[in-house]
Amino acid sequence: MTRGRRNRESLPIRAALGTDGTMTLNPADSACAEALRGRLSQDLFRPVEPRYLEEPRGLFKGTAGLLALPRTVEEVSELIRAAARARVPVVPYGGGTGLVGGQICAGGPAPLILSLERMSAIRAVHRLENVIVAEAGAILADVQAAARDAGRLFPLSLAAEGSCRIGGNLSTNAGGVNVLRYGNARDLCLGLEAVLPDGSIWHGLTRLRKDNTGYDLRDLLIGAEGTLGVITAAALKLHPIPASTGTAMLVVPDPAAALELLTLARDLTGDGISAFELIHGEGLAFLDETLPDVRQPFDARPDWCVLIELGLFAGLDAQDMLVRLFETAAARDLALDGVIAQNEAQRDALWAVRERIPEANRLIGAISSHDISLPLAAIPDFIARAGAAVARHGDLRVNCFGHLGDGNLHYNVFPPRGRSKADFAAQREAIKRMVHDLVYALGGSFSAEHGVGRLKVGDLERYADPARLAAMRAIKAALDPHGIMNPGAVLRGPAD
Amino acid sequence: MTRGRRNRESLPIRAALGTDGTMTLNPADSACAEALRGRLSQDLFRPVEPRYLEEPRGLFKGTAGLLALPRTVEEVSELIRAAARARVPVVPYGGGTGLVGGQICAGGPAPLILSLERMSAIRAVHRLENVIVAEAGAILADVQAAARDAGRLFPLSLAAEGSCRIGGNLSTNAGGVNVLRYGNARDLCLGLEAVLPDGSIWHGLTRLRKDNTGYDLRDLLIGAEGTLGVITAAALKLHPIPASTGTAMLVVPDPAAALELLTLARDLTGDGISAFELIHGEGLAFLDETLPDVRQPFDARPDWCVLIELGLFAGLDAQDMLVRLFETAAARDLALDGVIAQNEAQRDALWAVRERIPEANRLIGAISSHDISLPLAAIPDFIARAGAAVARHGDLRVNCFGHLGDGNLHYNVFPPRGRSKADFAAQREAIKRMVHDLVYALGGSFSAEHGVGRLKVGDLERYADPARLAAMRAIKAALDPHGIMNPGAVLRGPAD
Repeated sequence: MTRGRRNRESLPIRAALGTDGTMTLNPADSACAEALRGRLSQDLFRPVEPRYLEEPRGLFKGTAGLLALPRTVEEVSELIRAAARARVPVVPYGGGTGLVGGQICAGGPAPLILSLERMSAIRAVHRLENVIVAEAGAILADVQAAARDAGRLFPLSLAAEGSCRIGGNLSTNAGGVNVLRYGNARDLCLGLEAVLPDGSIWHGLTRLRKDNTGYDLRDLLIGAEGTLGVITAAALKLHPIPASTGTAMLVVPDPAAALELLTLARDLTGDGISAFELIHGEGLAFLDETLPDVRQPFDARPDWCVLIELGLFAGLDAQDMLVRLFETAAARDLALDGVIAQNEAQRDALWAVRERIPEANRLIGAISSHDISLPLAAIPDFIARAGAAVARHGDLRVNCFGHLGDGNLHYNVFPPRGRSKADFAAQREAIKRMVHDLVYALGGSFSAEHGVGRLKVGDLERYADPARLAAMRAIKAALDPHGIMNPGAVLRGPAD
Repeated sequence: MTRGRRNRESLPIRAALGTDGTMTLNPADSACAEALRGRLSQDLFRPVEPRYLEEPRGLFKGTAGLLALPRTVEEVSELIRAAARARVPVVPYGGGTGLVGGQICAGGPAPLILSLERMSAIRAVHRLENVIVAEAGAILADVQAAARDAGRLFPLSLAAEGSCRIGGNLSTNAGGVNVLRYGNARDLCLGLEAVLPDGSIWHGLTRLRKDNTGYDLRDLLIGAEGTLGVITAAALKLHPIPASTGTAMLVVPDPAAALELLTLARDLTGDGISAFELIHGEGLAFLDETLPDVRQPFDARPDWCVLIELGLFAGLDAQDMLVRLFETAAARDLALDGVIAQNEAQRDALWAVRERIPEANRLIGAISSHDISLPLAAIPDFIARAGAAVARHGDLRVNCFGHLGDGNLHYNVFPPRGRSKADFAAQREAIKRMVHDLVYALGGSFSAEHGVGRLKVGDLERYADPARLAAMRAIKAALDPHGIMNPGAVLRGPAD
């Protein structure tokens, strides 16, 4: 039993016990900065610019922090070791695009903000093995480009890909539009290099497809949102680039028909579906209202449509296949209308409809937005019941869209036209609770792809299985006994 | 910080401290049996038959134990809770087919052997969602059959599928022949129901494809070989059944050409390759020597060949595609000869060549056998260097075959014809060490798919990254503070 010993190994320097017996952390203040600068190279540190203290939704705002920009895993190790010794909180920082506040310590002592932006190298591309090794600070789009340059596909793809960083994608187990076919970030990772909360370096950059030698530390760090250590590099899976791709937007009578269409497309193409996105009529109306430059394919705006992308091999033609799919679906009343992109520009135009909906949502201003997932079969029921429940809160608008193939909906509630979300601030919590309670009752999740961060800590406490939550707390305490790693994210920290 | 509290919650009843300060466990003896019978239904217990104390390789043999056969997760919970209270070791028992002794407590106090064989129900098939929910004791072949009955594929497939149980497959993160395309057991699992070492039940049978709400307890239990809890049921992914399948055996000049052939097949078919197995000429010679009834496709036994299986959709014909692959490969000197199965009987005959090699190996009797994986690009180098190193131990025979697509080789060393493995017993450790050291030097793993069990605990200590090993020990101590779950497997137990 090494547990007791581990705890005693590193004696606290300035730790203080709070009155409730929990450990408190010390701020990364000027004294801490001096101490760190003494041990580490001066140019590792920079004044904190405001962008490191803000996040896209404006829900969390940090007030202070010490910014460190390490260039090597050894420097990350030194920084964490020093922070552990000084009992200073550490916030790992990637692209800053997270939507649940995992990157911002808004309360408690000022943190050491550990930005991976200088560790952005593509360390290697193993073409024969279909593996790319990237440092945590590599921008997702750069990883995609490096793969493409090698004639391969790195399929992780999401709205923030031009600025998010692969370390953050892994820490939050990012999803996006290609999960249906290729899985989420966890499914695309073979090995990690990481620094654990005691500063030790885990050299785990394996390129192996099979390695059954003990507990899966990789998948534990992936999705832990920086609370169990800092990912510094990853060995990632590449896929072949489909020889023929095709994109279509089909009008469907309702979400149940969209699910039947998905099954039909699967029966027809096997693993050939790269994306299957549900789009709601309200989202199209929002585009008309706020972004009229977005060209929409259907003059009569449909209530529901789906964006399908196929990627095929072996001489198959994706456009032909989409025609076949449309004809079969139309014969079964699963598709009422449809357009198939004939070239890259038309493909981009169809994707723009899907991808600019979040922007339209922001311009309208949601009262409450939800990143939920459901068992596929429960989706039509959820949409019907949630809609009825929202209606009880007034004449609200709902935009319900997302990655239908994964059961992942972005279910967002908006004020009626002419009213502002501020008018409904008092109802926000009740609506959120209603949506999440219903999701829970139907076997779904209150966070499909965005993670827990600081925004959903209360939801995790409310909805998580108690045995699992207890196990999570035990793991956190075992790996990070001083609670320095991203305190307050995922699990309530000592200061919360 | 709940860590300290967790430890104090359940006070030991009969725990004893060893002279080295570690906790010792108590045997599941008649007094323990009486105590358990007092709380639990009589018919949960049965006398231990020898089969629960033996394993296929005969390397580990238990002497005693108390056999419990729970029917529900609640009964499993009661049993574990009682064992935790009494500080009695618990060995979860599936199909008993594991090859590394994870299912046998050979030393230390007699364990409670917790067989899942009565929990063998298929609880549900969700056809639309491509999900099957099976209890841990379900035989793998029965899970496959239930999926097939629903028009779906459960792709986990391995030699022991007629007797291994899905709970054991998950606990060992089983691999097999379809990993290349569909992943290993971990990749096929969406959710778990499990009992943790304190007896608490984790109700985690989610069917969600996306659920980013905290630490990945699922993937931690998968591959933990029963040392962190007992899996009682799982929600598993199903796939579409390929519309056209085809099987071929192609003669290749050498392993490097086999890898190029794999890349070629991928470029041609994308995700269409279901299996890509390397077969060694020595394996064919072993079949001739021990199993002459196995019909081999090539009269002149080749040095190297590969077994390829394609599964295609969308109107593609797998046999046509195999012809195209063969012709392209032959033009590039990657394939020297080949046969393509024209019907199911021919397919079975080709697979029999691959699948009966382990039986032939057993009849010959290996001095040392290794379940290793390597980065794909390192395989030719490994085969050459290991062969040269083996030759320094004498005129030994090597049979090197396996799941080439996953970088997973079964590298087995045999005595020369006419000699027995017993003659080389003294060299066994040196050969094993040489193979594993070389694998390690090339970035590979000493256990690709069989796990650590009790056989490879020393290898794990030797080759594992120290930071990862420390994290594993901390996790084990945190989740199983009394060390009752499968002690001595994966990590050295207090009694070892």
